[in-house]
Amino acid sequence: MTSRKSVGEDEPTMEDDDAFVYVFDRRESDVPEVKIPTGGLFSFVEFKKRVQAALNISPSTKFIIATTDREEIRSDDTWDIIDKGDTLYVLNDLRQELCAPAQERVNYLPHYDTIVKGGMYEYYASEGQNPLPYAFAELIDNSLAATANNVGHRKIEIRLYLDDGNPRNCGIYVIDNGKGMTPRQLNNWAIYRLSKFIRKDQRGKVIVDGSIGEDSIYQPDAPRSLNSDISYFGVGGKQAVFFIGNSTRMITRPRGSQDVHELTISKEEFEMKEKNHEAIYSGFIRNRKPGDISHLPFEDEVLVKLVEEETSRDSFTMVAIQGINSDHITYLKQRLKDWTRQLAHIYHFYIHGPNGNVKPDETSGRIPSPFKNIDIQIQMYSKGQTHPKVIDLRDIDDDMQTLYVRNSASTFEFKAVVEGSMKVEGILRYHPFMYDRETYPSDMNDPRIIADPEDDHGYAISETPARGRRPIFECYWNGRLIPYTLIEDFEWCGSPKKMKTLPIECYNRISGVLWTDDKFQVSTNKLTFIDLEMKLRDKQTTYSRIINGQEKRTSIEKEFTNWIKECHEQLDKQIHFSGFQGKITRPDL
Amino acid sequence: MTSRKSVGEDEPTMEDDDAFVYVFDRRESDVPEVKIPTGGLFSFVEFKKRVQAALNISPSTKFIIATTDREEIRSDDTWDIIDKGDTLYVLNDLRQELCAPAQERVNYLPHYDTIVKGGMYEYYASEGQNPLPYAFAELIDNSLAATANNVGHRKIEIRLYLDDGNPRNCGIYVIDNGKGMTPRQLNNWAIYRLSKFIRKDQRGKVIVDGSIGEDSIYQPDAPRSLNSDISYFGVGGKQAVFFIGNSTRMITRPRGSQDVHELTISKEEFEMKEKNHEAIYSGFIRNRKPGDISHLPFEDEVLVKLVEEETSRDSFTMVAIQGINSDHITYLKQRLKDWTRQLAHIYHFYIHGPNGNVKPDETSGRIPSPFKNIDIQIQMYSKGQTHPKVIDLRDIDDDMQTLYVRNSASTFEFKAVVEGSMKVEGILRYHPFMYDRETYPSDMNDPRIIADPEDDHGYAISETPARGRRPIFECYWNGRLIPYTLIEDFEWCGSPKKMKTLPIECYNRISGVLWTDDKFQVSTNKLTFIDLEMKLRDKQTTYSRIINGQEKRTSIEKEFTNWIKECHEQLDKQIHFSGFQGKITRPDL
Ligand SMILES: Nc1ncnc2c1ncn2[C@@H]1O[C@H](COP(=O)(O)OP(=O)(O)OP(=O)(O)O)[C@@H](O)[C@H]1O
Ligand SMILES: Nc1ncnc2c1ncn2[C@@H]1O[C@H](COP(=O)(O)OP(=O)(O)OP(=O)(O)O)[C@@H](O)[C@H]1O
Ligand SMILES: [Mg+2]
Ligand SMILES: [Mg+2]
Repeated sequence: MTSRKSVGEDEPTMEDDDAFVYVFDRRESDVPEVKIPTGGLFSFVEFKKRVQAALNISPSTKFIIATTDREEIRSDDTWDIIDKGDTLYVLNDLRQELCAPAQERVNYLPHYDTIVKGGMYEYYASEGQNPLPYAFAELIDNSLAATANNVGHRKIEIRLYLDDGNPRNCGIYVIDNGKGMTPRQLNNWAIYRLSKFIRKDQRGKVIVDGSIGEDSIYQPDAPRSLNSDISYFGVGGKQAVFFIGNSTRMITRPRGSQDVHELTISKEEFEMKEKNHEAIYSGFIRNRKPGDISHLPFEDEVLVKLVEEETSRDSFTMVAIQGINSDHITYLKQRLKDWTRQLAHIYHFYIHGPNGNVKPDETSGRIPSPFKNIDIQIQMYSKGQTHPKVIDLRDIDDDMQTLYVRNSASTFEFKAVVEGSMKVEGILRYHPFMYDRETYPSDMNDPRIIADPEDDHGYAISETPARGRRPIFECYWNGRLIPYTLIEDFEWCGSPKKMKTLPIECYNRISGVLWTDDKFQVSTNKLTFIDLEMKLRDKQTTYSRIINGQEKRTSIEKEFTNWIKECHEQLDKQIHFSGFQGKITRPDL
Repeated sequence: MTSRKSVGEDEPTMEDDDAFVYVFDRRESDVPEVKIPTGGLFSFVEFKKRVQAALNISPSTKFIIATTDREEIRSDDTWDIIDKGDTLYVLNDLRQELCAPAQERVNYLPHYDTIVKGGMYEYYASEGQNPLPYAFAELIDNSLAATANNVGHRKIEIRLYLDDGNPRNCGIYVIDNGKGMTPRQLNNWAIYRLSKFIRKDQRGKVIVDGSIGEDSIYQPDAPRSLNSDISYFGVGGKQAVFFIGNSTRMITRPRGSQDVHELTISKEEFEMKEKNHEAIYSGFIRNRKPGDISHLPFEDEVLVKLVEEETSRDSFTMVAIQGINSDHITYLKQRLKDWTRQLAHIYHFYIHGPNGNVKPDETSGRIPSPFKNIDIQIQMYSKGQTHPKVIDLRDIDDDMQTLYVRNSASTFEFKAVVEGSMKVEGILRYHPFMYDRETYPSDMNDPRIIADPEDDHGYAISETPARGRRPIFECYWNGRLIPYTLIEDFEWCGSPKKMKTLPIECYNRISGVLWTDDKFQVSTNKLTFIDLEMKLRDKQTTYSRIINGQEKRTSIEKEFTNWIKECHEQLDKQIHFSGFQGKITRPDL
């Protein structure tokens, strides 16, 4: 099948019969090139004759043939260098000047490493963190977008089969019950950098605005920018799957459809196509009925089982990744608790709603928020056990956001308006001092945090303030954490330059969160904001406190100062040993 | 010319005469698809007849034609949806089950935004820094690699023409006198992700090891890893030029050649090719003699002048960027001093040699190091002035490294060995306290650094230690700075947990540099190391002090402690006002 010529916007396979080269006669003239067929040629002498004939060169005239790099072609050996479609000169002398310019056709199709290594060096480990959870996040992002308009509940499963000696049964499967993809959408999925903003609809017109057309998610007033609109650059999914493994099968059934569509891209396949001089970026989507396993080898037990499950699913998408990098396998198995906690942190507000993971008793009696419908579930399968270990991200209650939410005694909500129309929501939380210790949650995942030394009585003797060197703000974009961007503070909430009546430590007892939508830019790997901090620090940016949804007119600095003072006075329970007077030894006790 | 079919590893232009669709008869059979030509068809009815004939369907038999997304094709209007090469079904019923699978051809050529937006979101601003200097750095990297084997001096010029109302004369030109590129190398330059490691030599064999073949730079023993080997991923130059502008002309003359080769890639051209359904990744290299301006419009004054200069140049490469982003123009003009200083910092050791920019008197009498041969020059042209403002990076003496080098009173060299064979060189510098102030250089470029408040007498009253929150180490990769990776400290040189005899401030008076070669990985934009910190913190990593090139056997911790003690005792000139007793007002003065 691969011998059949591919069509459309892709490169053809090369066929010998229509091979040719372009030859410029540059002995002394400015004539256009001639296209000389090279099919059926077996020696340089034959080729030279064809050139002579094509350029009308008399048999007695001396001339040389050379590449555009001025390498002379003079024998079968040197003739071997020439590829189909190459450009050659006919010259009097190898070192003569080019009497007229010569245009040479070149092709510069991106190498397939664009896809295969796309994520490789982008998901860099920073501060010793393993970036693998962020690759999973890209797939969860896609599933959140796909399920945004679900009528019923939204389910995202990550199934890990990492425990089998048989590599065919070692894989990671991300499954959602979202809207799925039509064959055209599945095709578009594979096109690197084809973002939703430049995608064409079925009639070939560009959908200029992402908010119209089939891919639309339109939830402009979502609190905390929880709009599920987290597809942006057209690279995330591809980068992620090739960071995780080296082969991916996308299986999808669009809403309302009878059919399942399946497309595989893999490093191995790219390599094979390159070797066989086949079109690199061509492939086949398999359209079939749900549950049809006729194309799967019997040995692919896990995949067969999952495909059989299709009949019980409505619309869905399954990203099946194989060839998992072995370091990843070790990490995923050994650090299950850590990376699921990180995911719970990234999607905290999607999972728990705009107020975050408040203590259960506080919510009782409330109407469950619509966000409670998002289930993100990790299933870790072990060999020999029928039931996987299941972790629902919603059940995790020691992710950093949960700690911040639950260990705070007062909050301060505010809003920033940037350039007149871009809105940032924000919250500050006060973590009071309680009798003998700070209650500011410590980030056990951050390798920068070194445990404070303790004195003989178990009291911290360090002078590091509650949040230590940690910046105040974590930042969420369209509702999900952008992990590497942290914002230290703002002018109105940082430690004051001049001492105030308030002890300086109080300023170190606040944590904070910022939420923006996609009016602010993030890097393609969604690890950093590009312009958030700069824009927030702009002199034109205005801040105001929000109380019960209402904007207060008073200056934010004043509001904040009052709030933090109140926090200190009412919440900090401090026993302060002041004025150390020297040691008294009481041998009488 | 564009109507001619392109060849080789790229996509063809689409021609109407060989248009066809694939049709699967899926009424009840498992038969293979038929390829049905659609050339010369003007209505759906005609097409339907062809399908009937091709599938041997009798005129009385009812059937429907549908897309693989189950949209019925039943009229000229719906027929319009179909593209050449599409796959269609013949069915009994639009909603019937697929009785057998059907393979559908798809192409997923990366979108040209892969190239055009490659750098867009990668060069993200971090901490409020403008990343533009890092884009220039990618071009300087390429020029350093290209000039690595120059016999004579190595010259890299960045010429900026930003002051002309005429956009044709607004451009940035990076010119080096390196080895240039052959047409094939110029073609390879344009191929996204074609790194030197997977490039093919002229006979189509992959050059597996970067250290052999035409691109080789082999300087394994370069001190401070100053090996000029800074080409790695096959993306840097392309990302950089499209970050800076939207059109780039590469003009190059390979060493020893008569000819100049020229290739342009631009956003506009990509858009045009897309619009005209032409092959996106095809183009022409113009081969011509040096100084030949016949292809340039008369109005392109600057470019014409530069091309005319070619006759006086030997081998060279010129990267000519136009369509400069207007924010960049403002920044480049207004912040000339800042960004040139940043470049001087990035290439500090290339410009000044392994010891850095030591004070002139200290070097007098020494043999000039070979590195003194690298000239990196910025030329800023202004309208109406014949002579540009010229800045030689070597003349800059207020870049951070120069400040560190010149404001230190003692150094401590060391070496780390990671995983048995990967070597990291390092140096620590002591910046003593002098009478009334710390001499630790302050980083005026770092927006995080807030000037210390001063008391009435101009003395710093802040308690921030000398280096403040800054980490100790900056890190260089193959001799150039990787700007976003900073390493706080190591166990043996950080502030001790338990107080020692030494005042704690001393530990804040050290700056440091680490140098590695490409055994350590960096991200594709060369802004961060991937694994350096993790590997350095590994328990297996060994550190040893280097004195006069010799490795000391004593434990590094001990060596360091002795050194810093010595520094403090001999170099810190401290006047310490201790035991504040209250204010005395002397009205008598
Ligand atoms: N689980 C899914 N369900 C439905 N469609 C999906 C799913 N995953 C991906 N897609 C489709 O494939 C496209 C490409 O996904 P990919 O993650 O590679 O890029 P993106 O989401 O468009 O942009 P980004 O780079 O921001 O992730 C998506 O825009 C979406 O249309
Ligand atoms: N100034 C130059 N002189 C000669 N060759 C050059 C020059 N600039 C680029 N090239 C060639 O073009 C290739 C591609 O350059 P590009 O910067 O895009 O990627 P790279 O340098 O290979 O990898 P990286 O992504 O690390 O920069 C280089 O490897 C080199 O062979
Ligand atoms: Mg995505
Ligand atoms: Mg480069």
